[in-house]
Amino acid sequence: LTPARGVSPVPLGRIAELAGATLEGDPAVAIAGMSGLEDAEEGDVSFLASARYAPHLASTRATAVFLAPGTQAPPHVHVLRAADPYVAFARVLPLFAPASTEVPPGAHPSAVVGAGVSMGARAGVGPLAVIEDGAVIGAGSRIGPGCVIGRNAVIGENCTLHARVVVAHGCILGNRVIVQPGAVIGADGFGYTFQDGAFHKVPQIGIVEIGDDVEIGANACIDRATIGKTRVGRGTKIDNLVQLAHNVAVGEGCAFAAQSGVAGSTRIGKGVQLGGQAGVGGHMRVGDGVVVAGRGGVIGAIDAGSTVSGYPARDHRTMMRVHAALLQLPDLIRRLRKLEKHSESESGPEE
Amino acid sequence: LTPARGVSPVPLGRIAELAGATLEGDPAVAIAGMSGLEDAEEGDVSFLASARYAPHLASTRATAVFLAPGTQAPPHVHVLRAADPYVAFARVLPLFAPASTEVPPGAHPSAVVGAGVSMGARAGVGPLAVIEDGAVIGAGSRIGPGCVIGRNAVIGENCTLHARVVVAHGCILGNRVIVQPGAVIGADGFGYTFQDGAFHKVPQIGIVEIGDDVEIGANACIDRATIGKTRVGRGTKIDNLVQLAHNVAVGEGCAFAAQSGVAGSTRIGKGVQLGGQAGVGGHMRVGDGVVVAGRGGVIGAIDAGSTVSGYPARDHRTMMRVHAALLQLPDLIRRLRKLEKHSESESGPEE
Amino acid sequence: LTPARGVSPVPLGRIAELAGATLEGDPAVAIAGMSGLEDAEEGDVSFLASARYAPHLASTRATAVFLAPGTQAPPHVHVLRAADPYVAFARVLPLFAPASTEVPPGAHPSAVVGAGVSMGARAGVGPLAVIEDGAVIGAGSRIGPGCVIGRNAVIGENCTLHARVVVAHGCILGNRVIVQPGAVIGADGFGYTFQDGAFHKVPQIGIVEIGDDVEIGANACIDRATIGKTRVGRGTKIDNLVQLAHNVAVGEGCAFAAQSGVAGSTRIGKGVQLGGQAGVGGHMRVGDGVVVAGRGGVIGAIDAGSTVSGYPARDHRTMMRVHAALLQLPDLIRRLRKLEKHSESESGPEE
Repeated sequence: LTPARGVSPVPLGRIAELAGATLEGDPAVAIAGMSGLEDAEEGDVSFLASARYAPHLASTRATAVFLAPGTQAPPHVHVLRAADPYVAFARVLPLFAPASTEVPPGAHPSAVVGAGVSMGARAGVGPLAVIEDGAVIGAGSRIGPGCVIGRNAVIGENCTLHARVVVAHGCILGNRVIVQPGAVIGADGFGYTFQDGAFHKVPQIGIVEIGDDVEIGANACIDRATIGKTRVGRGTKIDNLVQLAHNVAVGEGCAFAAQSGVAGSTRIGKGVQLGGQAGVGGHMRVGDGVVVAGRGGVIGAIDAGSTVSGYPARDHRTMMRVHAALLQLPDLIRRLRKLEKHSESESGPEE
Repeated sequence: LTPARGVSPVPLGRIAELAGATLEGDPAVAIAGMSGLEDAEEGDVSFLASARYAPHLASTRATAVFLAPGTQAPPHVHVLRAADPYVAFARVLPLFAPASTEVPPGAHPSAVVGAGVSMGARAGVGPLAVIEDGAVIGAGSRIGPGCVIGRNAVIGENCTLHARVVVAHGCILGNRVIVQPGAVIGADGFGYTFQDGAFHKVPQIGIVEIGDDVEIGANACIDRATIGKTRVGRGTKIDNLVQLAHNVAVGEGCAFAAQSGVAGSTRIGKGVQLGGQAGVGGHMRVGDGVVVAGRGGVIGAIDAGSTVSGYPARDHRTMMRVHAALLQLPDLIRRLRKLEKHSESESGPEE
Repeated sequence: LTPARGVSPVPLGRIAELAGATLEGDPAVAIAGMSGLEDAEEGDVSFLASARYAPHLASTRATAVFLAPGTQAPPHVHVLRAADPYVAFARVLPLFAPASTEVPPGAHPSAVVGAGVSMGARAGVGPLAVIEDGAVIGAGSRIGPGCVIGRNAVIGENCTLHARVVVAHGCILGNRVIVQPGAVIGADGFGYTFQDGAFHKVPQIGIVEIGDDVEIGANACIDRATIGKTRVGRGTKIDNLVQLAHNVAVGEGCAFAAQSGVAGSTRIGKGVQLGGQAGVGGHMRVGDGVVVAGRGGVIGAIDAGSTVSGYPARDHRTMMRVHAALLQLPDLIRRLRKLEKHSESESGPEE
């Protein structure tokens, strides 16, 4: 079996070891790639993590599959048994990752590096990036091609900034922060006063401070504070095209799906999840552990631990009942009218 | 008549010929520009494609107008008769296009081109673009200023990538693909496992594969697959700020309007249309020919051929009735209460 | 007291003077920074502009606070009395702004400047920017690092384009326009004809014209017109990730919050406000002074002066009542069923 993707094949036993899975099969079998059950080819290792995809197990062409305890495998499949099949599968993925952008230590000759820039050990700056005066690039951090790091901005250690990221002046990133292409950290907040019939810009003199282990998606925007800091807590993950306005404070361990947004000065607790295209209004408080379903629109404070959906976002179970009931509404009007007529004919018109 | 926009005037007869329209007027009249009925100046050619704009026909200052068979023109207007006036009009637009960015064949001296890059005949790379090692730029393709093409990425033939586009490592574009500025193809998908109280990144080792004749809008994002491919089918058109998550598969001939989004692993059929700001949840199937109206939020499978709207998105006609009925809801409650009181007074309280 | 942020401290009397406020306190006290009431440290000046934050006044550590006439201050606080405390506060912000990106006059040697480019007095082009042939950069305007200014585009006087902005060929910006990083002005509109089972691109030969004193947010997109102009009126402010489609016309003095969008050919009056994630459909008219609340979805014409919300967007007060009533809907169905049963048992089944 030759590897399909230019990566050397790996014996199944090595994969089981790396994943922390128990192998029920032949450790010498060669694995050449990883894929979903439906797309798998011979030589691939796959996984079953959700009952939704169980029907594909019998017909998969995968050579080996990660399965939870108790799940039966078809006879042709080697089984990698793991308590959480997807977690185990994910541990192996780096083995088969394609060659990606490499930013070697030091600054590419085409990069423009300003005065007083500090570069930590093994820090690298890619081609055609701009590092403005006084910026700090921490040890082991890699700044991708075309990035712009503003004046006196601070990038922590072992960060990865992919292509064309902007970190504006004075903003601060923690360690191991990952930023996908096109994201803009530290643009001016949307702040104006309205005087004499026109908007007047309020200078935005604050910064953005991003905690350790945060990831920020492609073309996402996190605005600098008017004063003080816009904050994103440690371990929070932010998807593509997300908007965080000025002076927003996001706690640790949150996850904001694509195209969601948070308006100015709102404080979001720890472990909060926003579904895709969800939104939270300005000057609000969202408690720890809140889940806002996709497209949910929050226009008031949300208590810790709540799951909300819809617009205005309210308790998710209630909203599911409301949305189901909505379909009956036109009929309801008809039925009510009928009762009213009946009532009138029984007792004569009132009022 | 001198041309208004620095383009040489064109005789009306030549325009009729190019558009495939029948001229009812003077072929020697000089046309200097193209515009809508309301904005037209003398020397312009315009069109009427929708009854909505019919009132502007009488007062237009256009010299000539594309009209469908049967539409009456005011006496001062030369008529270009065509079965589909807008299609005919569109054929002529290139005649009056302003001078735009030109990327000549070869790589601009300021571009950074890596090792083992393959450039097809007449392929061009604009100023300050980065082409990483092993990338392939097909014949006739033009890479705009500031673009970043990742390692081993493949751009097909006769593609146009406008300014500052990112195509990340290993991703594949077909032929005649157009990408507007700022779009990001192949950022990491939003994939994490949650263990020991924190999110852990799942390596995203798949790619994005874009079919022939696809167009992708400004600042749109199409994420690479966790494993395998995120796919966009031939001829599909994607507007600005659209989000396609990892492992999404989009069929041929779809059209996704601005700010719409599709969550991970969802499969979208052929000829599907998403209106502006519409969204589709993850792990769903949307059948061929489905139309999701603007702002529609899909949270379940949608059968082929359906037109849906609202949130949760359901049959459009039903939702129109529901939305109309909603306005009566507060009054409905009042009326129901009245009936209840009446019923109680008739028969005494129950329970 | 030493300044916390590397900016020289300023006597309170000077701050009062600059703000146009009346000082009730010691003019010699040194002010080192500015912040919100909650975050303030000793040496900071703060403000109270909304009753929402009044509870923080007693406990603030700020040295001085801007207050409206009649608001009581705690004894430890110096008071800066002003009719509009936030307006007064905003006037002082530039004193404490951190050092930011500086684009000196002239073109950075790493920039690529085409033939026939016109640069006004004191105009500056930052590192690794691309200015294509025939572009005009007005006096005092600054083009940030990594920007791409297309062929024959015109940037007015005293504009500030931050990093990585694209202004495509032929587009026109007025004076004092500010563009945040990543914004794309003049990408092709989303225009196709559908013939023979496929979409065919309609050339987009128009431009974008931006009025004086407009600000455009990070990664926002304003598409060029199919023909003629997409227009943004003087003094309008556009937030991050906003989408304005081709041939949209926006009046003067509007404010569009983040992630809102306007579909093609829609005409928006003066002084219109779109809340975050709001949307307006295509070919519509929105009158002067209209306010669309956050997430409002406009699918029809809106009369001048209206405030609308929800989807489909309708009168805001009505929608508030509707949204409140929605929660009663499941119960309403139950109550109606009960009345029907009662009615049947009284009079026997009908029909």
